[in-house]
Amino acid sequence: MSTFTVKAYGAESKIADLQEININRREVTAKDIEIEILYCGVCHSDLHTARNDWGGSLYPVVPGHEIVGRITNVGSEVSKFKVGDLAAVGCMVDSCGECESCKHDLEQYCQNGFTGTYNGKDKHLGGHTFGGYSQKVVVDEHFVLSVPENLDLAAVAPLLCAGITTWSPLRHWNVGPDSKVAVVGLGGLGHMAIKLAKGLGAEVTLFSRTPGKTEDAKKLGADHVVISTEQAQMDAVKGKFDVIIDTVPYEHDINPYMQTVALNGTLVLVGFVGEFENEEPSTRPMIFQRRSVAGSLIGGIAETQELLDFCGKHNIVSDIELIKIQDINEAYERMLKSDVKYRFVIDMQSL
Amino acid sequence: MSTFTVKAYGAESKIADLQEININRREVTAKDIEIEILYCGVCHSDLHTARNDWGGSLYPVVPGHEIVGRITNVGSEVSKFKVGDLAAVGCMVDSCGECESCKHDLEQYCQNGFTGTYNGKDKHLGGHTFGGYSQKVVVDEHFVLSVPENLDLAAVAPLLCAGITTWSPLRHWNVGPDSKVAVVGLGGLGHMAIKLAKGLGAEVTLFSRTPGKTEDAKKLGADHVVISTEQAQMDAVKGKFDVIIDTVPYEHDINPYMQTVALNGTLVLVGFVGEFENEEPSTRPMIFQRRSVAGSLIGGIAETQELLDFCGKHNIVSDIELIKIQDINEAYERMLKSDVKYRFVIDMQSL
Repeated sequence: MSTFTVKAYGAESKIADLQEININRREVTAKDIEIEILYCGVCHSDLHTARNDWGGSLYPVVPGHEIVGRITNVGSEVSKFKVGDLAAVGCMVDSCGECESCKHDLEQYCQNGFTGTYNGKDKHLGGHTFGGYSQKVVVDEHFVLSVPENLDLAAVAPLLCAGITTWSPLRHWNVGPDSKVAVVGLGGLGHMAIKLAKGLGAEVTLFSRTPGKTEDAKKLGADHVVISTEQAQMDAVKGKFDVIIDTVPYEHDINPYMQTVALNGTLVLVGFVGEFENEEPSTRPMIFQRRSVAGSLIGGIAETQELLDFCGKHNIVSDIELIKIQDINEAYERMLKSDVKYRFVIDMQSL
Repeated sequence: MSTFTVKAYGAESKIADLQEININRREVTAKDIEIEILYCGVCHSDLHTARNDWGGSLYPVVPGHEIVGRITNVGSEVSKFKVGDLAAVGCMVDSCGECESCKHDLEQYCQNGFTGTYNGKDKHLGGHTFGGYSQKVVVDEHFVLSVPENLDLAAVAPLLCAGITTWSPLRHWNVGPDSKVAVVGLGGLGHMAIKLAKGLGAEVTLFSRTPGKTEDAKKLGADHVVISTEQAQMDAVKGKFDVIIDTVPYEHDINPYMQTVALNGTLVLVGFVGEFENEEPSTRPMIFQRRSVAGSLIGGIAETQELLDFCGKHNIVSDIELIKIQDINEAYERMLKSDVKYRFVIDMQSL
């Protein structure tokens, strides 16, 4: 298969800083789209994969799955896009297309495993896939999204992961104007959850451990901020929320939040992947008010397009800090200290 | 308030055997119904309350919340029942009637707390309520159920707790002819879950740790038995079940069962009330296939009537072992060894 070489930024090992490397991209096949990457958002998964925090990383790791760019080439059978169009790519670049999940536009739950935008198994070239910290990417058109022309392109990038990860559960659990939604965690995902839930018309509350985030949360659209360490405030919202989007990416005690879920409501975990080893969930809040704890993973391609269209219509984008690719290692250190409002996006012209 | 005395069986302390005692019942008020108790099922909660296993027991404890009998008196404003009718009482004898839960026929989730049939706060006489191990009970008509005439009355009793506890989640999670349901645990609740899910038309699987229960499960209506300690059998049902009714009453590892829940499916805990201290739930099966863990508590009064009517129509009752009240302490010991198929029911004529 024909390939061409592009510049990228990658990690050669779990202890190596990211640096400039060269990678190969395939020449477009009949259904492929070649995109010149203009912006790429920086997700916590990028950092964790580069450092092999979850195990199984394949090197070199070229992270990046919040990709926005412009189409520079299309395959002979591509119908939805043309050269010059804006385009975006999220966390997936392929899936089996044949299982019940794929048939129902739920590629993220592909029964045969979707292909991650980076560190997935590259079906075309062998080896593993490389993400958006690169000049160009070549992707099957089914996994390419259209980008509304009216939005700030750099700030669109985080919609492709942080946005869809919160949008999908809001939609699945039917959030609308009559809903009361709470958000746990005010980072990349949390700030999008507030904006999107508000965009859907819900009454939105942020749970915060400290009062310091109140002003920011309200600027983002939150109607209320509840300080979760203040028992009186927690008691005042007992049984209130139809849906809680819990974006906290590490083990934490969900029991106090569960008490604030309404009868028949759901707390959706979108950040923490792992076992509750020390913070023990209780079945009591579940049983005594028929509450659920659920998980949700990114979103399907059709649902991602729905999100981008919704954001175009409602003028919603991420709050970002634009950086150069040369600053990525420093950005990772700042992310570990939660020192970003609320998402780093790389200006790929800097590569 | 006028009262009359009836014989009952109760525990005077957490270490005392149950023995014959006298208790007072109120004379019927305008909306009350007086029932001569014919049969009373024996629930694990009876034992745990008698022995104060959960704390908070009030003595004397007179257990029993699976009550079937015949009406011997009705208040002046009672409209739904008349003397001589069969009647049943389950786990609740009162609730606030005014909160959103009560207004929606969800008295079991009353925001002000329902009144338990025993060990609840007696709004009429003060003190605490006494359950069905007694000659008669007096209950507000809203909490009295009609019993189909065609069923074995003794075997109806367990429908009032074991039955409704499994019926409610089957109905709430929309189990029907297209559903694949699994049941964890083959006791009083589990055997009812099999019968009721089958009655609703679902394909029903029992999870068992040993092959010894296969024949019994199939007699009850299970289509399949999966030995949960056999990895190959567990792998074969990965992602299969829309709903799992988990009746296990103690802490256990739900992760292997979670893997068998279908995309968008739910594992419903109806037996274990407490914290997962040693068996750590993982968020992975939740996140990667949008599965939920939920809890469910008994069922509402209207839903309990629906269950009884359904059982009358489909000729479904519990499999029981009929005992005399004098054998209750021995029965408790046998329950602790799971030595009952599948529910003890007390013939109250023995009192």
